[in-house]
Amino acid sequence: MASDESAAAAKDERVERRRAFHTYPEPSWCEFLTTSRLVDAVEDVGVDALHVGRDVIAPEHRLGVPEDDVLDRWHERAADHGARSDVLDATAGGMTGLVAVLENGPGPVIGLRVDIDALPVEEATGDDHEPACEGFRSRNAGAMHACGHDAHMTIGLGVLEELAASEFAGTFKLFFQPAEEVLGGGKPMVESGHADDLDAFFAVHVGFGHPTGTIVSGVEKPLAIRQTHAEFTGEAAHAGSAPQAGRDAMQAMAAAIQNVYGVSRHADALTRVNVGRAEAGTASNVVADRATIDLEARAGTNDVLAYLTERVDRILGTAADMHACDLSSTTIGKAPRVDSDDTLADVVGDVASATTAVETVRPTATLGASEDATYFMRRVRENGGLATYVIVGTDHPGGHHTPTFDVDEASLDIGVNVLTEAIRRTFAADDHRQ
Amino acid sequence: MASDESAAAAKDERVERRRAFHTYPEPSWCEFLTTSRLVDAVEDVGVDALHVGRDVIAPEHRLGVPEDDVLDRWHERAADHGARSDVLDATAGGMTGLVAVLENGPGPVIGLRVDIDALPVEEATGDDHEPACEGFRSRNAGAMHACGHDAHMTIGLGVLEELAASEFAGTFKLFFQPAEEVLGGGKPMVESGHADDLDAFFAVHVGFGHPTGTIVSGVEKPLAIRQTHAEFTGEAAHAGSAPQAGRDAMQAMAAAIQNVYGVSRHADALTRVNVGRAEAGTASNVVADRATIDLEARAGTNDVLAYLTERVDRILGTAADMHACDLSSTTIGKAPRVDSDDTLADVVGDVASATTAVETVRPTATLGASEDATYFMRRVRENGGLATYVIVGTDHPGGHHTPTFDVDEASLDIGVNVLTEAIRRTFAADDHRQ
Amino acid sequence: MASDESAAAAKDERVERRRAFHTYPEPSWCEFLTTSRLVDAVEDVGVDALHVGRDVIAPEHRLGVPEDDVLDRWHERAADHGARSDVLDATAGGMTGLVAVLENGPGPVIGLRVDIDALPVEEATGDDHEPACEGFRSRNAGAMHACGHDAHMTIGLGVLEELAASEFAGTFKLFFQPAEEVLGGGKPMVESGHADDLDAFFAVHVGFGHPTGTIVSGVEKPLAIRQTHAEFTGEAAHAGSAPQAGRDAMQAMAAAIQNVYGVSRHADALTRVNVGRAEAGTASNVVADRATIDLEARAGTNDVLAYLTERVDRILGTAADMHACDLSSTTIGKAPRVDSDDTLADVVGDVASATTAVETVRPTATLGASEDATYFMRRVRENGGLATYVIVGTDHPGGHHTPTFDVDEASLDIGVNVLTEAIRRTFAADDHRQ
Amino acid sequence: MASDESAAAAKDERVERRRAFHTYPEPSWCEFLTTSRLVDAVEDVGVDALHVGRDVIAPEHRLGVPEDDVLDRWHERAADHGARSDVLDATAGGMTGLVAVLENGPGPVIGLRVDIDALPVEEATGDDHEPACEGFRSRNAGAMHACGHDAHMTIGLGVLEELAASEFAGTFKLFFQPAEEVLGGGKPMVESGHADDLDAFFAVHVGFGHPTGTIVSGVEKPLAIRQTHAEFTGEAAHAGSAPQAGRDAMQAMAAAIQNVYGVSRHADALTRVNVGRAEAGTASNVVADRATIDLEARAGTNDVLAYLTERVDRILGTAADMHACDLSSTTIGKAPRVDSDDTLADVVGDVASATTAVETVRPTATLGASEDATYFMRRVRENGGLATYVIVGTDHPGGHHTPTFDVDEASLDIGVNVLTEAIRRTFAADDHRQ
Repeated sequence: MASDESAAAAKDERVERRRAFHTYPEPSWCEFLTTSRLVDAVEDVGVDALHVGRDVIAPEHRLGVPEDDVLDRWHERAADHGARSDVLDATAGGMTGLVAVLENGPGPVIGLRVDIDALPVEEATGDDHEPACEGFRSRNAGAMHACGHDAHMTIGLGVLEELAASEFAGTFKLFFQPAEEVLGGGKPMVESGHADDLDAFFAVHVGFGHPTGTIVSGVEKPLAIRQTHAEFTGEAAHAGSAPQAGRDAMQAMAAAIQNVYGVSRHADALTRVNVGRAEAGTASNVVADRATIDLEARAGTNDVLAYLTERVDRILGTAADMHACDLSSTTIGKAPRVDSDDTLADVVGDVASATTAVETVRPTATLGASEDATYFMRRVRENGGLATYVIVGTDHPGGHHTPTFDVDEASLDIGVNVLTEAIRRTFAADDHRQ
Repeated sequence: MASDESAAAAKDERVERRRAFHTYPEPSWCEFLTTSRLVDAVEDVGVDALHVGRDVIAPEHRLGVPEDDVLDRWHERAADHGARSDVLDATAGGMTGLVAVLENGPGPVIGLRVDIDALPVEEATGDDHEPACEGFRSRNAGAMHACGHDAHMTIGLGVLEELAASEFAGTFKLFFQPAEEVLGGGKPMVESGHADDLDAFFAVHVGFGHPTGTIVSGVEKPLAIRQTHAEFTGEAAHAGSAPQAGRDAMQAMAAAIQNVYGVSRHADALTRVNVGRAEAGTASNVVADRATIDLEARAGTNDVLAYLTERVDRILGTAADMHACDLSSTTIGKAPRVDSDDTLADVVGDVASATTAVETVRPTATLGASEDATYFMRRVRENGGLATYVIVGTDHPGGHHTPTFDVDEASLDIGVNVLTEAIRRTFAADDHRQ
Repeated sequence: MASDESAAAAKDERVERRRAFHTYPEPSWCEFLTTSRLVDAVEDVGVDALHVGRDVIAPEHRLGVPEDDVLDRWHERAADHGARSDVLDATAGGMTGLVAVLENGPGPVIGLRVDIDALPVEEATGDDHEPACEGFRSRNAGAMHACGHDAHMTIGLGVLEELAASEFAGTFKLFFQPAEEVLGGGKPMVESGHADDLDAFFAVHVGFGHPTGTIVSGVEKPLAIRQTHAEFTGEAAHAGSAPQAGRDAMQAMAAAIQNVYGVSRHADALTRVNVGRAEAGTASNVVADRATIDLEARAGTNDVLAYLTERVDRILGTAADMHACDLSSTTIGKAPRVDSDDTLADVVGDVASATTAVETVRPTATLGASEDATYFMRRVRENGGLATYVIVGTDHPGGHHTPTFDVDEASLDIGVNVLTEAIRRTFAADDHRQ
Repeated sequence: MASDESAAAAKDERVERRRAFHTYPEPSWCEFLTTSRLVDAVEDVGVDALHVGRDVIAPEHRLGVPEDDVLDRWHERAADHGARSDVLDATAGGMTGLVAVLENGPGPVIGLRVDIDALPVEEATGDDHEPACEGFRSRNAGAMHACGHDAHMTIGLGVLEELAASEFAGTFKLFFQPAEEVLGGGKPMVESGHADDLDAFFAVHVGFGHPTGTIVSGVEKPLAIRQTHAEFTGEAAHAGSAPQAGRDAMQAMAAAIQNVYGVSRHADALTRVNVGRAEAGTASNVVADRATIDLEARAGTNDVLAYLTERVDRILGTAADMHACDLSSTTIGKAPRVDSDDTLADVVGDVASATTAVETVRPTATLGASEDATYFMRRVRENGGLATYVIVGTDHPGGHHTPTFDVDEASLDIGVNVLTEAIRRTFAADDHRQ
């Protein structure tokens, strides 16, 4: 990094940038404006190659893609807010994201992945919620950066700037991945082939209960996960004059919900189940002929996830049948568990220990959440490379995915500094690979 | 009625009119275009008084009024489709409906009520669904005249035309009531005072399983009903990293649904319960902090309805508490049970027996459904008048409230003829009242 | 009846008799002592034929027969209390009941059926419970005459005495039917053939909310019913160290219970569902590998019962499958709906109107309960005879089947008098049959 | 140990002894015969002090004590099978268990605890179940040593014999604890004061998936647990004629079961919930007025257990209220989590590594189950002593608590040898305490 003055300027710029992202959150696969702004920012830095939209996504591997009318609405809104037409073309139909590449001669190929999508959460309005007070609360109703991806993009751009401004030997690839929240973007970006030549890979996430000043250098337990959209189809009937003529999708749904939560714990690994969204029927006087739920199962191992999903699927099917309904279900998100490599985590740990403003370095921590960055990690390790998942601590008043979530902007610089130096150091050492 | 020729013309006109209504269904309290078209039609006939919108609705008694943005959307759509601006003004904010009055000197005051709203049902598209084949399928996505109110309005206008064209002594009031499907319009129209001077009152409904050619002259058992909107509020949390921090509105909702359906039957009267609409949460990876359901209880007596609602309310409250959520609930529709008077039903029965195309006359039948016309009936009877609820049979391929519902248009004339003559006869006899 | 004095004596004797029955209630198919005492009483009267135990029961049609060890225990207890060894032999293995026959030359054959079993209810002990105060509370722990069968037997014996002491032409058959409470004894007694030659048939029940002094001459709506015993079999596991290894019969059972109560009401007839008994698992730290429930469905018509049972069976099967358990279920009780004949009910009504102490005669009433006397009624009517089901009102402090149920002993004489005279009158008129 | 020959004899004797215990399993607090036989065996060895029954149990701390009639039945059965009358007196009323003491002059006080009760499991009968083939299957119907306590008692006696036959300085206390399966005996035995002077404490358990030849020297994660007996009281009613008059304990119970299983997982520690026993109602035609369930919650930390029990209690209360029932609940078993001391575990590990037939030594393992030995461990540690929980591996064909559970008798000697030597070594070193 350069002088103190330029550092302060960079910091202010990062805060601005993060707040700009925060103001216009876009849901998974709808990050049209976001992609456009990232392209602008990357071009401002100057890179050797830039791949956008359908060049970085293998469409058949996408999960959790919204209906066309939703995609269209966000696409139009992005246009209204000034998204570039070339980017809008390249991303049309839910093909968002980009990969920026710096090539500095021979040397290892290092990747960094940051995620770019927001959540379907209505942001808080209270006086104690800083984005509301400071005027950068979400302007997209029903959408919010409630998991820090605004910070991730900012950190990613910061690292790119730092690396572009410095000497290093090798190639740096910065992956701006869409649709992490639905665990739908990781696999299609990996399947696009851009991660096939990586010698080392970093993923980064802020928070998860770790305060500002803490760095976790290698997460060991992202939960394996499967997310499912299930639809129960029955038959409508007048609830007063012919209730028996109905096949009640509402009851099928309620039975499914109650019993899915009751799936037995497993002695071999921790488990999670959640039904997070439901929608059924039309009016109180009609037996519901249709009900949909979005649910998920997570587990500490891939095997226990297989156990869970078998049980969940059994419950969905029998709950439908119990009330004479039909079931159709589709996987809307999926990610395996893949742990970090100690070798690469150690590099991060060493760097972090020497970084100003870092007070605590944890060699590892459990995630308790899921991540489709694990698709990158698995691919890189299969190819003989190293991978680690880094947490940059940040004080956050509300929990992840809640309306009062926020990040401590002081963590932006910490993230940029630790990751930039770790990437440089990985270059420098170059002892992990022949 | 006049010559055969003009009768045939009238019939064609009625079919046209019913299909026009069918094409633009509007949900409860959003019948802006419908009200405008009815005003046009009534003015074409020529009446002595016409009261529209806020002149016929006591706003504080309305139930089931949608959110402002929904009202606004339909209001704008009505404007786009050419609704009259005076009617749009008079009905703004969900104050739909009208009362048309013919005054022909001294004599009794007779009322007829028809309902005008549609249902939140997506109409069928198949080749065996006549509105689809014949080009008058609903053009308002997600809304459908699936309970015959298009026919009711047509019959009401037909009776008005017939009475206007004939000699009679007394006053005829035609009530076009909004929001019957949510049982929300009957009471506010009665509380507007327009029904206070009625000596006799007729309500009419097509179908309910009675084929074309059948007239039920006095329904005896409309079910008492209460419809409720319940909202469970919990607390969101990340389903992977902190599930225990959530208070799960999804589970509260599911427990409520499962147990509401299990409310015990009652030995004194038949009962119905239905949860017809549900909506909860945002995404599979967030513990749902909010869930809403629309549900209803019906019973064969007002006392048993009181029993049912006590049990249902207990379940809603405890289900919320069970998962540490809060509950707020509001009544969105309500109607008592009021039976028909035999005296007035007999008038209808006599007339029907003498009417061409009527093959079967039933003195009574149970309704199995609920109706807020019972508010009119109760008011009229309290004031010493007579009331009856008439069913005009119609062959209907799909059940009421289902996507394939349709009416046999041959029943339109039958309805007009029987009701016109019954109203005339009630005038003529004039022996029910001094 | 004879002089006032002997009437008073008869009355006292009836009260004694009823109390004796009340003191030693025996559950369905275990009425060994009861059968023995009835045989004694019938022999005291003197009859022309007496058929006991396996002579009056077609064993393959029995339902709800308890396990052998239960039968044995009650059989032994009956022996301990002095039951006759010939009756114990004739009834061994759960073949209880008897048919007593008076043959008085040519004339019609008339049957009266009374039921003899008790319920698995622990009788109340409070001071306000007369059987407890007066010393005739049940001495069989866990069993109680809580539905008035003690009164029924007393009335039946009273009618037999009266008829035996008077002149009449024809044959009278008195059926003491076992296992009515489990709806298991009606069919096997009918299938024994003893009811095949009946020209007229009466069944009698006290109470059902009708006070002392009321006679209902012909019940019209006994509910059709099916009772089921269902067993869920899963797999046990240690709830702490290997919960996932279990297949949890407890959860299957709970899902079944919750959803069975939610089976939709039916527009064509009233319905009832009840899960009345459940037993599952062994200890809190073992995943339950077995659960059993006893449940029933009732309906106002045989068709709606078929609807209900189809839905209930579907729920049982899917609930088992939902938790990877197996289901086996058996019908433990069953009775159709059969209404009373007006002709025969009119005879009862005429007699009742002329009977001292009868204040109110109702031509009909709904039962709201089920009865396997309907098997007799159906058989008699199929053979061209007449049948009616008579209710003898009795003030009863607690509800049927509850620990505080009791009968007003004043109703005993009323029952005897009305039925005796109705049977005589049916003889006398003899116009119902060639 | 002495010569090979006497070792073989000892081994045979141990097998005999274990099989004798296996043949007569007795449930928690009913170990009357078992206590008598243990007293005999201890007296055969010869000890310095022997405390039996009410001398070793603080009655007010007992949990999970059965009803008096159950206690009486087992007490009588023990008498029938030859239990000593002095022991029957000392243990009457459910005061089972004993503490045997060897005092060999000055030195530390060392305790070993083994548990003595059996489970309510019906033992398997198949040819592949060795106890069945070899003729030592349980002769007490419905009871079974399905968790190896027969082996524990045998190991305990073996250690006593070995220590009694050898030189050592100090005091050895052998605790034969009743009612471990209901987690009800640990606390009252500790509260009796006999464990207050311990300097070191060992608990032992066989199996838990570890094969013969494995020793786990210090379990680190016994789950904290609370077991609850809950009773729902409603009101009975005739299910056909007056269902609405009931308050249905069956539905309250089913709602409780379904929702208890759905209590959210916790990010801080693993959790378990199980409803293991249920009983409700009397017959299918009576609305159930009473239902009871036995359930449990376990957690990896005492704090998370507090979270779980708060949620479970909330659900029980609201489920009762939901169906207008009353709830009463009592804790029937309880144990905290307490981990082993590394220092003491290391002694066991060192000994085990040097023991013939031990192939694998694990310094630690999670238990996945709960144990009220933790009450001993907590008391000893509070008093400055050391404690460890040792697992002696044993091949077991069926899972713990299942009908096919069995132990590999080769593990008996291993257990005796490792524990004896560990106790001796703890004496010898004497460096853990001043």
